[in-house]
Amino acid sequence: MKILIKNIAEIYTMDNKVIKDGYIIIENNKISEVGSYIYEDNNNYDKIIDAQDMIALPGFVNTHTHSAMTLLRGYADDLPLDKWLKEKIWPLESKLTAEYIYWGTKLALVEMLKTGTTTFTDMYFQMHKIAEAVAESGMRAVLSQGLIEENDGQDGLKKAKQFTENWNGEAEGRITTIMGPHATYTCSPDYLEEIAEIAANLNVGITIHVAETKKETEIIKNKYNCSPVKYLEKINLFDVPTIAAHCVHISKEDIQILKNYNVGVSHNPMSNMKLGSGIAPIDDLWENGVNVALGTDGVSSNNNLDMIEEARFASYLQQVKNNNPTVMDIETLLKMLTIKGIEILQLNNLGIIKEGFIADLILINMKNNPVFYPQHNNLSNLIYAAKGYDVSTVIIDGKIIMEEGLIKTLDEKKIYNKVNEIISKLV
Amino acid sequence: MKILIKNIAEIYTMDNKVIKDGYIIIENNKISEVGSYIYEDNNNYDKIIDAQDMIALPGFVNTHTHSAMTLLRGYADDLPLDKWLKEKIWPLESKLTAEYIYWGTKLALVEMLKTGTTTFTDMYFQMHKIAEAVAESGMRAVLSQGLIEENDGQDGLKKAKQFTENWNGEAEGRITTIMGPHATYTCSPDYLEEIAEIAANLNVGITIHVAETKKETEIIKNKYNCSPVKYLEKINLFDVPTIAAHCVHISKEDIQILKNYNVGVSHNPMSNMKLGSGIAPIDDLWENGVNVALGTDGVSSNNNLDMIEEARFASYLQQVKNNNPTVMDIETLLKMLTIKGIEILQLNNLGIIKEGFIADLILINMKNNPVFYPQHNNLSNLIYAAKGYDVSTVIIDGKIIMEEGLIKTLDEKKIYNKVNEIISKLV
Repeated sequence: MKILIKNIAEIYTMDNKVIKDGYIIIENNKISEVGSYIYEDNNNYDKIIDAQDMIALPGFVNTHTHSAMTLLRGYADDLPLDKWLKEKIWPLESKLTAEYIYWGTKLALVEMLKTGTTTFTDMYFQMHKIAEAVAESGMRAVLSQGLIEENDGQDGLKKAKQFTENWNGEAEGRITTIMGPHATYTCSPDYLEEIAEIAANLNVGITIHVAETKKETEIIKNKYNCSPVKYLEKINLFDVPTIAAHCVHISKEDIQILKNYNVGVSHNPMSNMKLGSGIAPIDDLWENGVNVALGTDGVSSNNNLDMIEEARFASYLQQVKNNNPTVMDIETLLKMLTIKGIEILQLNNLGIIKEGFIADLILINMKNNPVFYPQHNNLSNLIYAAKGYDVSTVIIDGKIIMEEGLIKTLDEKKIYNKVNEIISKLV
Repeated sequence: MKILIKNIAEIYTMDNKVIKDGYIIIENNKISEVGSYIYEDNNNYDKIIDAQDMIALPGFVNTHTHSAMTLLRGYADDLPLDKWLKEKIWPLESKLTAEYIYWGTKLALVEMLKTGTTTFTDMYFQMHKIAEAVAESGMRAVLSQGLIEENDGQDGLKKAKQFTENWNGEAEGRITTIMGPHATYTCSPDYLEEIAEIAANLNVGITIHVAETKKETEIIKNKYNCSPVKYLEKINLFDVPTIAAHCVHISKEDIQILKNYNVGVSHNPMSNMKLGSGIAPIDDLWENGVNVALGTDGVSSNNNLDMIEEARFASYLQQVKNNNPTVMDIETLLKMLTIKGIEILQLNNLGIIKEGFIADLILINMKNNPVFYPQHNNLSNLIYAAKGYDVSTVIIDGKIIMEEGLIKTLDEKKIYNKVNEIISKLV
């Protein structure tokens, strides 16, 4: 398959170039050429996309979600955290079968593709069904079986190990697996050490919730007399490449530890705000050279998977925290949406529109959309005024997965009907 | 003109009712019937809308914007406030002709209609051109000529008075005019008193920026040894019905003053966050019974006019401020988007879907839209997951202004072209 995308208004390559009136050629799953004139040779392509009035970007990377939680969207809002979890979320989650999770994931995949996400990180259960849905959809994903010691124990470790082995590199290489201990307060030091050992042996990474709430930091302080970050350092978890989700309640010393071990931070501002968890010190993390990217968290606390909206919240939240409108700029946000996500997930050959890189990219149509006028700065209009649904075309691994808003790999209507059917049985 | 809207999945009437499988009949510009069964008599209507899978709501009310500032969208982001205003915004604004403002307003009208706003409040200059654009568009608006003493002086007062007289009640009653002193720090006590007197004589209201920034409160403290709110009370401005925009830096005493004088507060969270102005105490205002509604501010500091996004920011910002996810619930947000806006603008017979009320309403299509699945709570999905662009149909003053996303009163493409043409001359 050889694809030409021509007449692209602006290509943000993410290696410090903006190409105007550009073109991209894709051969098989890789970018074979990127240039800046209008390409004339129209004869040798299986597919030509005319991208006039469009922006091309690497696809968005969602570095933290629980995709099947789409099933819980709107089920429990505006409640105190404890009541929300114990009386609503956990009881419903306990009823989720593998089949339900499969369809909930498919609903999330529809939403992610429509809003321009090409790679996402997931931590949940029944992960083999999530992997199946990902494989069918054409999406790229980094998947981890969530582990809560009390619920999952040694049996969970075995299952997680098996899932990690079985699915790593599957779906033409689009699936990467990592280990997923849930959090510092739900896994003992021994359990975390076992998980880190499995990860090291399998040569995979780890993702874990870290310092999401004040309560968590108090629990760890009481038990181990240190911060959650320090605790994880002490038990050598960070010897394994780690993605730490949230990092809301962290100290300057914690930031230094995250930097020293090259821990990637997944910032989830909308979830942190909606649940009243707090404001992560993204300004300090960024200044200290820690890799930060964006995540949506699950939609029971967000309640959508639109990464552009997430970026806008990330920006405005840091500005108001600092009473300073210059803390985060558009370029920083674009990096957090794309290349920084690839970096913290430690994926290779992705996140840049450049010869030899894997073709995961999106096209945004600016035409006839009021938020793209006037055209002082298309990137500003994209990040500060547009929405994920303005993404028109999604290419993953060199394949056109969505074209002009139509997803080719998933049957949307069937998914909506299935989800409604599931909910009528569940609630 | 007699319109039947039938098969409506849910009608949020805003007088404490949710009608399922409902219908609405509109005769001329008023709602003549609202009910809860499927209406069968299809013979006597000029127009029948089948609203299956749709939500009906009163239209959104944007209580503070400067609509022609669409022309500045994306022109100056991520800058310190002073530099932003003095080096970018003001120099460009000084070049805006009446004709440019007319087209900038039209661009804003396209965006507002597409995102479900049926009434907006504006403060700017060349207001007669803004009024002309509003009249043509079918929109409802509360318009004020902005007055900065140093720039506008006595001549400005005359012009503003004339505009207020000429346009009040025009466009079949869709235009209401009020007086628009810019702010406490740009108008002297004498000037503000003159404006209040004109407003009282013309029997119209006032809108003014109040306590937007910390700097403003310091200026007023130094000059008059009190807060901006107290200052306005002292000079009896609040004897005139007032809409106070922003109210970020206010004390408990200020809140009591706002309550005592029934001052309406226009909360603009996205602008306050993006400019780093601060977090308005909406929780305290609401608890103390002050009327609060939402506004977008101009798009040079937002950068869009989507009221659903504004409501989401309002909610999540108060939750994170309080470290408490129960501070604002969906019902409160829906009120702030609709009926509370009507109340603070002191408009009559609007904001409720009820027999005898003026027909300003919107329909949101939930079908084939992933964020509306599953259907645990359609209102939650609308406020926490959807976007203004999910509004399908807009009816204002009994007329169908937008149907299935198509605006009938404005030529979108012509507006986009005109705006690009203007910018090419301006910048």
